[in-house]
Parts: sequence; structure tokens; C-alpha cells
Amino acid sequence: MLPEERQVLDANQAFYDAFEARDLDAMSDIWEHSPRAVCIHPGWASLRGWGSIVSSFAALFRSSQSLQFLLTEALVSVNGDSAWVTVDENLLGDQGGTTVAAVNLFVRHSGGWRMVLHQGSAVHASRP
Amino acid sequence: MLPEERQVLDANQAFYDAFEARDLDAMSDIWEHSPRAVCIHPGWASLRGWGSIVSSFAALFRSSQSLQFLLTEALVSVNGDSAWVTVDENLLGDQGGTTVAAVNLFVRHSGGWRMVLHQGSAVHASRP
Repeated sequence: MLPEERQVLDANQAFYDAFEARDLDAMSDIWEHSPRAVCIHPGWASLRGWGSIVSSFAALFRSSQSLQFLLTEALVSVNGDSAWVTVDENLLGDQGGTTVAAVNLFVRHSGGWRMVLHQGSAVHASRP
Repeated sequence: MLPEERQVLDANQAFYDAFEARDLDAMSDIWEHSPRAVCIHPGWASLRGWGSIVSSFAALFRSSQSLQFLLTEALVSVNGDSAWVTVDENLLGDQGGTTVAAVNLFVRHSGGWRMVLHQGSAVHASRP
């Protein structure tokens, strides 16, 4: 594995660590604070721009539901100053388990890789 | 809009044109044929590698269901030799309409932009 692939996987892990810890400061450090940042939670419409995204995490972290992520099938690709990880989120929540297919996209900043897009979609939901 | 943003939006539109026309040759021209190519249809597990992806489109195109895409809220971002579009797919199918939040990721090749990742997730499905 290339060093920059390892860096991207570390950034990817930091996202899930912040999610599990409900740590909004850590989550804020992970994301690019820009209008082009996009987050699509499973079943949700697209949230565009950092303001909408941080509001969603604030609401999720206030909720009573705690989440644990068991990550499998992580695949990292680096293309210049962009990189993405596809990963299966095996979620252990208060209401049982489910699997979410996720994509996390990062861009290279001077201080490291910052998330610019996260999308998760529940596996085995209804198909179009 | 920058010329390269227009190019990416054109590549994005070509994907949906090929999908609506059930044109596997056109779909093949759009994608990067590589192991890192990933496609996540709504509700499906991740398909990794071009072989799995082309098989899925062959199966979808053989099905009796025709799809029409009304695209809204397209947002394009170019970061070096990578680019992505987030777009709402408003699907008009035989079984009624639905909205899918989609991300399409492209990488720059000598011959133009090639899709390397597509993910769609149905909006208003159950949340984790």
C-alpha cells in the first residue's frame, strides 16, 4: 500500500471514529468547510455545503441512538489530489444491524486529506 | 461555468442518455474499465470492477422496466484530474416515480472524462 493510500484510509477511519464518539469538533476537522461539500445520509436528500452538513451531524449526535461501525471491504483509490474510499458500513445500532454501502471522497489540503463527500445507501432496500 | 466543468456535465449526461437508451456500448464507452471502478445501484451492494458493473447494466437493460431520468440540482466540482457530479435523479418508471440522490465520479483520461464511480441512493428510504 502506498503511503498516501494509508493517509486516506487513516482519514477515513477518523470519520468513523468521530461518528461513533459523537464528536462534532473532530467531525468538523475532517471535513472541507466549503459550498461543494456534500453529504448523503442513507435515505436522505443530498445536503450541500458545510453548514447543512454540520447541522445534520449535530442533530444525529443529539439523538438517543448510538452507532457502531464495523467496516469491511474498504477499497482506496488516489487520483492526484483527490482520493476516495468505498467501504461497507456494518452498523450495530440500538435497533439491530444493517449494512450501508458508502463512498467517502477526500481532497488534498496543505494540512492533509479533507472529506468533501460522503454518501451511504442501505443495502437491500427497494430497487428502482 | 468553466469549460472543463461543462465537459464533466456532458459526460454525466451521456451516462443517463446511455441508461435511458439501454445502450451497453455507449455505457461501456463512458466507464473506466478498471478494477477500481465501483457502482452502487440503489439498495444494492457495491459492485467493484468493470466486469461486475457491465454485467449489472446488461441485466438492467434486459429487464422489462424502462426508466426515464429527470435530472435536477446538478452540482459539478473539478479537482485536478478528478471531477464529480451530485445530482437528483427523478425517475419515471413503470411503477411510478421516485427520487434517487446520486454521485458520479470521473477521472481525466487522454480521451476525456471517464466514470469511475456511480452511487445512487433512494431518498426517503428507511434511515439507520
